[in-house]
Amino acid sequence: MYVNNQFITLTTDFGPGYYVAEMKGVIKRVNDKAEVFDVAHNVSRYNIVEGAFILSRVWRHYPRNTVHVGVVDPRVGSERKALAVETEYCTFIGPDNGLLRWALKDQQTIRAISLDSDVIKTRAGLDGVSATFHGRDVFAPAAALITKGVDVDTLGMRLEDIEKLEVEEDRVIYVDGFGDIVTTITKEIPLGSKVKVLHGGERHDAVCVEKFSDAEPGELIVLNGSHGLVEVDVNQGNAAERLGAKSGDEIRIENAG
Amino acid sequence: MYVNNQFITLTTDFGPGYYVAEMKGVIKRVNDKAEVFDVAHNVSRYNIVEGAFILSRVWRHYPRNTVHVGVVDPRVGSERKALAVETEYCTFIGPDNGLLRWALKDQQTIRAISLDSDVIKTRAGLDGVSATFHGRDVFAPAAALITKGVDVDTLGMRLEDIEKLEVEEDRVIYVDGFGDIVTTITKEIPLGSKVKVLHGGERHDAVCVEKFSDAEPGELIVLNGSHGLVEVDVNQGNAAERLGAKSGDEIRIENAG
Amino acid sequence: MYVNNQFITLTTDFGPGYYVAEMKGVIKRVNDKAEVFDVAHNVSRYNIVEGAFILSRVWRHYPRNTVHVGVVDPRVGSERKALAVETEYCTFIGPDNGLLRWALKDQQTIRAISLDSDVIKTRAGLDGVSATFHGRDVFAPAAALITKGVDVDTLGMRLEDIEKLEVEEDRVIYVDGFGDIVTTITKEIPLGSKVKVLHGGERHDAVCVEKFSDAEPGELIVLNGSHGLVEVDVNQGNAAERLGAKSGDEIRIENAG
Repeated sequence: MYVNNQFITLTTDFGPGYYVAEMKGVIKRVNDKAEVFDVAHNVSRYNIVEGAFILSRVWRHYPRNTVHVGVVDPRVGSERKALAVETEYCTFIGPDNGLLRWALKDQQTIRAISLDSDVIKTRAGLDGVSATFHGRDVFAPAAALITKGVDVDTLGMRLEDIEKLEVEEDRVIYVDGFGDIVTTITKEIPLGSKVKVLHGGERHDAVCVEKFSDAEPGELIVLNGSHGLVEVDVNQGNAAERLGAKSGDEIRIENAG
Repeated sequence: MYVNNQFITLTTDFGPGYYVAEMKGVIKRVNDKAEVFDVAHNVSRYNIVEGAFILSRVWRHYPRNTVHVGVVDPRVGSERKALAVETEYCTFIGPDNGLLRWALKDQQTIRAISLDSDVIKTRAGLDGVSATFHGRDVFAPAAALITKGVDVDTLGMRLEDIEKLEVEEDRVIYVDGFGDIVTTITKEIPLGSKVKVLHGGERHDAVCVEKFSDAEPGELIVLNGSHGLVEVDVNQGNAAERLGAKSGDEIRIENAG
Repeated sequence: MYVNNQFITLTTDFGPGYYVAEMKGVIKRVNDKAEVFDVAHNVSRYNIVEGAFILSRVWRHYPRNTVHVGVVDPRVGSERKALAVETEYCTFIGPDNGLLRWALKDQQTIRAISLDSDVIKTRAGLDGVSATFHGRDVFAPAAALITKGVDVDTLGMRLEDIEKLEVEEDRVIYVDGFGDIVTTITKEIPLGSKVKVLHGGERHDAVCVEKFSDAEPGELIVLNGSHGLVEVDVNQGNAAERLGAKSGDEIRIENAG
């Protein structure tokens, strides 16, 4: 493989604190030329769907061959596999729990490998380290090795299948820094239609528009997002605050006609 | 232009989340040698004055030729221009809404350019991208191109004037991580004078000192800041918490003599 | 000294905001090849023990010769010294208030230097800067100079002793992003024993286990941490939320037998 960059991104549910910095330290020990980019560390704890959504958005804006690491891992310590998935465009690393699935939808998968933590530790010069913290002790060194040009096939065994992502219908996936709400609703809403947004026992009037500026400031709107998912927003306002909505909540959209 | 560094800083009101990471990805696609530094992404939403204050503080501590990107952009999607302003020391990029004005006060402006988003996309190899997110699709690639040595005049049209910054008198501009309050008050307070700080219907006794250590721990003080703005602080305490003050609030200082 | 990397980490109590970015700007002015990594900026204000704990955890995961800067500095402006401590593995920089002590426990100290801020400013080309903000004006340029290969002995005077870290018994040191609680309790709890966790006037039943997966989901547990400190956790839950515990709180563990 021709190494034309040594970029690694990190998406986790670790919250604030020093664990992310430990991952970066390990990466630099293994490949001192790697460059690491934080995507988000505020994924709701154990919310695999939220992490999957973020990973599916970000990879396309990074250069080819970037290694994207995701760690949202409720079953760490169990027998769930650790994955590296190489696509035509980049590589993803993370637990085999569905987290990487959405990122693979818009591109061709070349190979999926079940990572062998002992091999990774040896190759990374980290023998004797107990792999208590998989983000730091398995995923980070695996990413660093791949950015050095190590063939991912030498880090584990090929897999035919990886775990599916379990997505509940009618849920909030993601709330962004502006309070815009992304949902799991994939049914396209007709432009201009009046709808009811149901959340937390409340019904809110909204209208489906094509873009923010088609709505009045402060108006609740629904949008058919470019990712194929329905969004609920307020033009120049905060939809999540108005509804009291957060990632994982149930949310429905009904025709008000 | 002699490129002696390829540094870019980012100051936004995006809050937590992956949008900043998308900007960094685009920057690295356009210039894989660029280095990106986060200044702050917790600017209060749409608070142009707060963003302008931060930009005015930070540039002087960075190397020459650093490109500072600011995105606090309530009128995105409208006809407001996108700016690049080159000074004797560095370059600023952001919306033409006053955000860059304070950063230009202490240095000579060389040229201001109204950025042409189509030209930027072509030069950056991002043709076909719809510029829905100006931070990622216009400002980030423009910054990356400039750090590659692209002449900013080739990215748009010269402007004679840029928009002014509208600053309300007697306001909180900024609250730092320690709870220190920076205000828009520019009238110098006499050292040693006793004053009343008016905020939220309350009147607080304070004294004007030269530096923190001139006050007792826990004492409310006012300082004539080095930036020419009056600050309200508590020595070893949190003034913003004590007053319940946040960016944008009205605040007044009266002589208590 | 052979410079095999130019890495600097930052651990502060500055909270969100632009002060950290100013430190990075100064570092890049002094050494444009330095790479800076954020460890944590959410150390509880003035909580030296919490900062000391984080510094003691992180250095071992970074490459040799990394310079670790810590700024938790309640007595800034007083006569407390500014330190650089070189060990067999790396270098630490920070105020002489005990902050660096725990990081030095697991490695051999080679030399400790009381940094001379005037010398640092001259060597860093920052003459005329008043050192009002030691993180930016003293610690950051000192770190940058050391990563350039400057002999730390030329930046100040050797010290025989540095300040001790004052640690209160039976306290919460640190709460991580998952709500796991690290305490100052060093007495090893027997595996399998039933205990009472005393916090905030409440008594909570818990059991001492070897690792998370030995407990039921939701069960309150105590662990003898690998750092020699007792932790209080909830398997797949948030112990700090359940107890209402935060850094600095009193916490006790009693035998329930």
